[in-house]
Amino acid sequence: MTFIASLAAAWQKNDSLLCVGLDPDPARFPAHLKGRDDAIFEFCKGIVDATADLVCSFKPQIAYFAARRAEDQLEALIAHIHAKHPGIPVILDAKRGDIGSTAEQYAVESFERFKADAITVNPYMGRDSVEPYLAWPDKGVILLCRTSNPGGSDLQFLDVGGGEKLFERVARLVATEWNTTGQCALVVGATFPAEIARVRELTGTLPLLVPGIGAQGGDIEATVKAGKTLGGTGLMINSSRAILYAGQGGDYADAARQAALETRDAINRYR
Amino acid sequence: MTFIASLAAAWQKNDSLLCVGLDPDPARFPAHLKGRDDAIFEFCKGIVDATADLVCSFKPQIAYFAARRAEDQLEALIAHIHAKHPGIPVILDAKRGDIGSTAEQYAVESFERFKADAITVNPYMGRDSVEPYLAWPDKGVILLCRTSNPGGSDLQFLDVGGGEKLFERVARLVATEWNTTGQCALVVGATFPAEIARVRELTGTLPLLVPGIGAQGGDIEATVKAGKTLGGTGLMINSSRAILYAGQGGDYADAARQAALETRDAINRYR
Repeated sequence: MTFIASLAAAWQKNDSLLCVGLDPDPARFPAHLKGRDDAIFEFCKGIVDATADLVCSFKPQIAYFAARRAEDQLEALIAHIHAKHPGIPVILDAKRGDIGSTAEQYAVESFERFKADAITVNPYMGRDSVEPYLAWPDKGVILLCRTSNPGGSDLQFLDVGGGEKLFERVARLVATEWNTTGQCALVVGATFPAEIARVRELTGTLPLLVPGIGAQGGDIEATVKAGKTLGGTGLMINSSRAILYAGQGGDYADAARQAALETRDAINRYR
Repeated sequence: MTFIASLAAAWQKNDSLLCVGLDPDPARFPAHLKGRDDAIFEFCKGIVDATADLVCSFKPQIAYFAARRAEDQLEALIAHIHAKHPGIPVILDAKRGDIGSTAEQYAVESFERFKADAITVNPYMGRDSVEPYLAWPDKGVILLCRTSNPGGSDLQFLDVGGGEKLFERVARLVATEWNTTGQCALVVGATFPAEIARVRELTGTLPLLVPGIGAQGGDIEATVKAGKTLGGTGLMINSSRAILYAGQGGDYADAARQAALETRDAINRYR
């Protein structure tokens, strides 16, 4: 099944637009995991197993694994999700972006090595830096459009002609030119609901990955109302830290489940 | 010593503006290396040892290692360069770009794990996505400005107001606002000499990493004349495939040395 089809199925099956981001920080792990060689895998496995029926996707952030030589634990984690929770797509948050021959290598890394269902990609280098990922017809390519950090405005908010902002141009290019195969989605930060609405207007039913609720402060009601499609889907609303670190003790997975349940339900109130 | 100071010293000592890009593709390795577990390390070590007195920097491209689970060989390669060729800075070509908390993880990956002297970074997410790297005062941060691939024009060539193009805005922002610590450099592709000249004009003596000569077709004379500083330096002109695969047999390192020597000397004719 393609990433886009898996996502649509998970929206339905779990009645959820929630994506749980896996940004494992060992300094915040519960005491019983500290010092274990497989602590990153075990921590994330606990989160995944406690929340898999409440989410539409998982999104491991590769930097947290790479900083600690834990690529093997990332491979094991994604294999675990596919084996134990089939149908829940895995987005590798890597924000890659490079010339075609290098992008081919990143596609191998993401799709063959890590077996992710989708990857986040930076659009700055243009269309031919995105195409190699589309050569994998079952995979998803989620392009940065409007990011949730303060500096996101430095370039993305520039007027590129006729009142169109750079992030709007990216949305329009992806929707009308780059997404020839129906594999694309966009990243739009929850901290800017008016801009989510604008991207929704420009892109029809294109799925939007929306980081920035929870620790980053975005508002759930405004996000859902701005970004949902007519069918009440179209969104992967990501929460990472607010779920991963909802509890600090041996019951961290239960606390994460409770936080995920509340977040899913809060989202569903506005669909 | 800082990255920028090491680079300046290597320009002088080796009388060279040449950066050798390390993009190891096992399908193109000589027969005697095929099938070895450490083939990537050994191949690159052969190139490095044959060219270290002819270059101002080495630039391993992380995708080629990550696609083959060869991060350990990348660590070993950079350690080898530091041990055997001290003073030659290593640029990790990773084109990272993410929110601050994630960028901190990528900085740990690049500077603590791999012990690179500089990293390439994508500017699309703005200033706060770049700052975490600057917290490492000895390291360099090389921001994408104008890239050498065909799609580079899709966004970078957009007019962002008053006739200024997006890549010019990036050059100006980095030179006048983001580079408060003197650690920054820019990527400007060799396929666009007029744009190299424009970036030089906007950035004073900021070092420019220039990919795109060799396999990508950029012109050496035009590149050097457009990008050199008054002192005849300011450039890291990258060649990867044309040097790595100059020979196909057991003498591939000798062939690489010859190609590097010719490229260095061709560059020096126009300084």
